[in-house]
Amino acid sequence: MTADLQRYFDDHRANFLDGLRQLLRIPSISTLPEHQPDIRRAAELVAAELRQAGLHQVRLIEGDGNPLVYGEWLQAPGKPTLLCYGHYDVQPPDPLEEWLSPPFEPAIRGDDIFARGASDDKGQTYILIKAVQALLAVRGSLPVNVKFLIEGEEETGGRHIEAYARRNGRQIGAQAVVICDTEMFAPGLPTLCVGLRGLVYAEVEVTGARADLHSGVYGGVAPNPLQALAEILTGLKNAAGRILIPGFYDRVREPSPAERSAWARLPFDEERYREREIGSPELVGEAGRSIFERTWTRPTLEIHGIRGGWTGEGAKTVIPARATAKISMRLVPDLAPQEVFERFRGQVERLTPRGTRSQVRLLSAAEPAVVDPDNSYLRAAAAAMTEVFGAETVYIRSGGSIPIVGLFAEHAGIPSVMMGFGLPDDNLHAPNEKLHLPNFFGGLRAVARYLEMLG
Amino acid sequence: MTADLQRYFDDHRANFLDGLRQLLRIPSISTLPEHQPDIRRAAELVAAELRQAGLHQVRLIEGDGNPLVYGEWLQAPGKPTLLCYGHYDVQPPDPLEEWLSPPFEPAIRGDDIFARGASDDKGQTYILIKAVQALLAVRGSLPVNVKFLIEGEEETGGRHIEAYARRNGRQIGAQAVVICDTEMFAPGLPTLCVGLRGLVYAEVEVTGARADLHSGVYGGVAPNPLQALAEILTGLKNAAGRILIPGFYDRVREPSPAERSAWARLPFDEERYREREIGSPELVGEAGRSIFERTWTRPTLEIHGIRGGWTGEGAKTVIPARATAKISMRLVPDLAPQEVFERFRGQVERLTPRGTRSQVRLLSAAEPAVVDPDNSYLRAAAAAMTEVFGAETVYIRSGGSIPIVGLFAEHAGIPSVMMGFGLPDDNLHAPNEKLHLPNFFGGLRAVARYLEMLG
Repeated sequence: MTADLQRYFDDHRANFLDGLRQLLRIPSISTLPEHQPDIRRAAELVAAELRQAGLHQVRLIEGDGNPLVYGEWLQAPGKPTLLCYGHYDVQPPDPLEEWLSPPFEPAIRGDDIFARGASDDKGQTYILIKAVQALLAVRGSLPVNVKFLIEGEEETGGRHIEAYARRNGRQIGAQAVVICDTEMFAPGLPTLCVGLRGLVYAEVEVTGARADLHSGVYGGVAPNPLQALAEILTGLKNAAGRILIPGFYDRVREPSPAERSAWARLPFDEERYREREIGSPELVGEAGRSIFERTWTRPTLEIHGIRGGWTGEGAKTVIPARATAKISMRLVPDLAPQEVFERFRGQVERLTPRGTRSQVRLLSAAEPAVVDPDNSYLRAAAAAMTEVFGAETVYIRSGGSIPIVGLFAEHAGIPSVMMGFGLPDDNLHAPNEKLHLPNFFGGLRAVARYLEMLG
Repeated sequence: MTADLQRYFDDHRANFLDGLRQLLRIPSISTLPEHQPDIRRAAELVAAELRQAGLHQVRLIEGDGNPLVYGEWLQAPGKPTLLCYGHYDVQPPDPLEEWLSPPFEPAIRGDDIFARGASDDKGQTYILIKAVQALLAVRGSLPVNVKFLIEGEEETGGRHIEAYARRNGRQIGAQAVVICDTEMFAPGLPTLCVGLRGLVYAEVEVTGARADLHSGVYGGVAPNPLQALAEILTGLKNAAGRILIPGFYDRVREPSPAERSAWARLPFDEERYREREIGSPELVGEAGRSIFERTWTRPTLEIHGIRGGWTGEGAKTVIPARATAKISMRLVPDLAPQEVFERFRGQVERLTPRGTRSQVRLLSAAEPAVVDPDNSYLRAAAAAMTEVFGAETVYIRSGGSIPIVGLFAEHAGIPSVMMGFGLPDDNLHAPNEKLHLPNFFGGLRAVARYLEMLG
């Protein structure tokens, strides 16, 4: 990295942190309708940041869903065009009482900045914007063409960007997407993510009697939707972690021997992982599968919430008239979300006990994705990361879902380069989400070097 | 009934309804700590009513729990003493949105008064108070001695009255208890309740990981307390309604052939019951058992509520760190609450899946009870009911629990006379609770006649 660029980054540390804090203060929670005004404020702030970075044609793209924020710099003729993706929406912060500092009042403790969205994905989106700003400020131009497309619905399935990708297809006019929304395998270990699980997220509602009933008077004859849900849930996955939906595993693709042996060389201590990251008495899941397989290459089914009956203090002897459960499945290649959802719905119907009725609604879906690391965009990213962090870049997968990776591969025919600057203990989707500041500042340099190398 | 007493009731219809409405307006919900001031207001209003009725020594008895309201009239030497029991506390009104009129703004529609507590038990307690008031007002004296003991914790297990009964035992100085907290089997059919189920109400908390986790990153290895609860719940009761706790049914006493044949003569249409009272596609429960057995003489296990994870709108992909379920069992003779609770706790421990931990807390308990109908206090009650309602009195059991019935039998050695004026469709513990006004006015006359007959 040239000294002038390095000096720019050094001079702007406080300024970049202030800007990031401003973005983190907006509770742009896409799952909660009451936060729609915050969604818009966040989109407008991202647009202002893109303008400040020196991008052209900056605007909000309106459509069915939350606005996309667009910006471009296309003055490098003959050079490739890179699409820079991030998202400005965040997960809800519940349970609030477990946060050490309020989720939307960013707090720096030690080397970390704590706030909802710090790592997922405002902090990482900010890395992309500020790396481009630095190059334009110091050099007056970029080594490649860039287009920014920052969405506001990543946490709810990305309806708008999906429609956008379908509509524009190859006319998006980029040769690769760069995404900063994943993590480094370990602190100081540069990492590219080359696989993501997909998602089917559904809600199951079970109804029994017409109204809530007294469990003394009617207990013994009235159907109980909570009991019905328990029966349905244990009929979807057994205690050994195996999903019981017929045919569910038919199209699961196993990882290659090369991938498996690369993963076996990763620095990983299972006991430390259990203790530090999970904090439960034991790890669970499919016997005979490694942690990497269980979290990266095996499908899962998880219950996210159950609502029904009396959950306040003390005792209320009610048989509730209805109960709902939120359930998702993570998908691996070659499971298709629509087919999985139909199988899921069929199994819930088969499991619904007599006396009750069930309804299944699809809330969001994403395709699983794997990227072939043998392409010039990934090789350049690996080289830039290795140079900046001073260690060999490793290739991993992630158990999470980034819907646009599959979308851009399918509709625009372009690969995704997932340069991640999060860390495994960043508490994504959980209380006390954080971003490690050395990764933030390293990420700025790595993205800037990546653009230079591509140029 | 003499004409002067009848005239008193006729003249005071509007006045009694106003008084009842005043009591129903107080949200004296014993399960919710924030309603403690309302508990006290309700107790004080009941005390004022007892004074107005002409009772002596009226006072609140303070102790560990909500106050008992006491009053007495002991000027009938040589006559028996009857203990009049009721409760001024009510269940929470949730779900609020299903009430046609607000739960604490009593509304008369047709022949019914709608409010939380209308039937259970403020309206029925009020019958006892106003029947005594009428006799004292018209005759200047009562045909028997009476003591009133109105509690404020019936819906949470009756801790205070239990301590009171244990402490005072036979010194309570009464030959029988009269309770108006049950129902008539059908409109116009005078009914005495001679059996109640007991209760064990527990809360099970399951914990997994230290904090909420992202289901993408950790799904496949992190324990899920909601899945664990589903496994525990289906291990407590099977889909056929049989409780799976080892030894649970060992001490269940079957009803006598005489009881069974009396029940077979009750006017009952199972299809109408399913349609009108339950409103579910089918009735459930143990095969080969009648509705009366399933609700009166068989133990049950019901889930009242599950709390855990994300239950707001939309999709949050969280594996929650903890989840809780509220579960109760209804007990029949000769199941003992403490023994049942220990068996329950043992089974929950055995069922708790690896990777999770569970904790079981007892929230409330009540003994089951059966009363031998062959005693003079019950015979007089049956005669009074038959005279007032013009039909033969029937004997039924109830699936609900009234903790003091077992308590007074055990500690004071006295039988309970359960003259009920509720109806099967009164929506106890549910939205749109009501009391049928013809039963309210009939109840006043029946209780007054009962006291006269005992005298």
